Amino acid sequence: MESKNYQSLSPRELRAAIRTGEFTGPTVGCCLGFTQINVVILPARYAFDFLLYCQRNPKPCPLLEAMEAGIYEPRFLAPGADIRTDVPRYRVFRGEGVEERENILDLWRDDLVTFLLGCSFTFEWAMMQAHIPVRNIEEDKIVPVFVTNQPCQPAGVFKGNLVVSMRPIPPHQVSRAVQVTGRYPGVHGSPVHIGAPEALGIADINRPDYGSPVTIHPGEIPVFWGCGVTPQDAIMKLKPELAITHAPGHMFVTDRREEEFALA
Amino acid sequence: MESKNYQSLSPRELRAAIRTGEFTGPTVGCCLGFTQINVVILPARYAFDFLLYCQRNPKPCPLLEAMEAGIYEPRFLAPGADIRTDVPRYRVFRGEGVEERENILDLWRDDLVTFLLGCSFTFEWAMMQAHIPVRNIEEDKIVPVFVTNQPCQPAGVFKGNLVVSMRPIPPHQVSRAVQVTGRYPGVHGSPVHIGAPEALGIADINRPDYGSPVTIHPGEIPVFWGCGVTPQDAIMKLKPELAITHAPGHMFVTDRREEEFALA
Repeated sequence: MESKNYQSLSPRELRAAIRTGEFTGPTVGCCLGFTQINVVILPARYAFDFLLYCQRNPKPCPLLEAMEAGIYEPRFLAPGADIRTDVPRYRVFRGEGVEERENILDLWRDDLVTFLLGCSFTFEWAMMQAHIPVRNIEEDKIVPVFVTNQPCQPAGVFKGNLVVSMRPIPPHQVSRAVQVTGRYPGVHGSPVHIGAPEALGIADINRPDYGSPVTIHPGEIPVFWGCGVTPQDAIMKLKPELAITHAPGHMFVTDRREEEFALA
Repeated sequence: MESKNYQSLSPRELRAAIRTGEFTGPTVGCCLGFTQINVVILPARYAFDFLLYCQRNPKPCPLLEAMEAGIYEPRFLAPGADIRTDVPRYRVFRGEGVEERENILDLWRDDLVTFLLGCSFTFEWAMMQAHIPVRNIEEDKIVPVFVTNQPCQPAGVFKGNLVVSMRPIPPHQVSRAVQVTGRYPGVHGSPVHIGAPEALGIADINRPDYGSPVTIHPGEIPVFWGCGVTPQDAIMKLKPELAITHAPGHMFVTDRREEEFALA
């Protein structure tokens, strides 16, 4: 089945294949040019605090859409879609417990609030358009991610440290990388930190907390962007009675083209 | 008293003068270079929906800070300030009723949520730095404001039309005006509409719904920005049992410099 050319499917077609269970894989390379995003679903009692956490920490937590309680159609990013069935793989957290599922129809409740957050795929796309190297893509690895020693601004019950992804950039392209990704403030935007990993409490740039190390060529500068693991980390710390996210790499594919998130 | 040079006071000094009742006037021209903002205070039951309304309509509703219920210190924009006393004049809405006051200490409740929104003063400052004319300042008038025929994205109980402010700009400077104000997405950002007022349902550009008409020199283009009256209009439509805002022109003066709101 997965031999089908998922790169060229429309997002609507891909989501239909996900809904029927035909496609259950990771979404890297699917529907090229369309924005893929992170999913967080929480009970309404946490919704204001989580929205506030995103508002206070927009670089690691770039909120693209939030839905009223009980609503499962993301009408801005993907009208007609159903957030309960159209993500290829979900993670369901209940306090300390975690399980994976292919849909959450039986878990749905009228008090669940869905948050859709921008993902680094979009700015990596913009960097590639600008011929800036994206090492994790070149080497087909999961981007290296580090939990820093920098606390985020807490909001209500949510708190945690800033989590960053790292991409090594040749010195003459660092400035361009800032400008190119800065056009996309809705999907992490410009870097949060350039060079000097030790200032973020990173002891060894070749030993990320998540993802894989990538090659850093001599003279390349490690450049750090806010990472979508940041809000997930704050949720994991809270251990709410219920929280649902996409499984890593199994993103929600929207109807919006990457370019639509450029600054207007 | 008002002969004191309020332009050169620090924001902290001005707020102290407001708190004691020494200064009760409009804040135009006060603490030059520091950001002044719009205040909206609502009961917690409306807070998630209002935050969502701001998130969905960021150009007319640029949220700079929201506070947890019961908190009256805006610790990001003005640490040490008290939102109950440090605005020179408040408007208190209760259903159909409205009154003005110089503080809201006796109205304060643990379920009140404060929202602080960006104001056009900041991008007008940026335009002046770039030598782009700001006609309402040149003519010492209140900027002309129009209620358009364009609905905002509704959110929960909040809905309403986009409200815009208009500044006439010489054709050769329109592009620069877009770029200069676009650096400030947190304070309305780039224009929402350029030229063709009739497309917004504006019948007569010389008859604004609020504020005063300004001179439009021959060949100048009317340029429209999202206006902070937009969220106030949505609140007025809802007629909640309690809503508190600043009185027009009597803004909250923060400790943050205008330039801090430029895109980073």
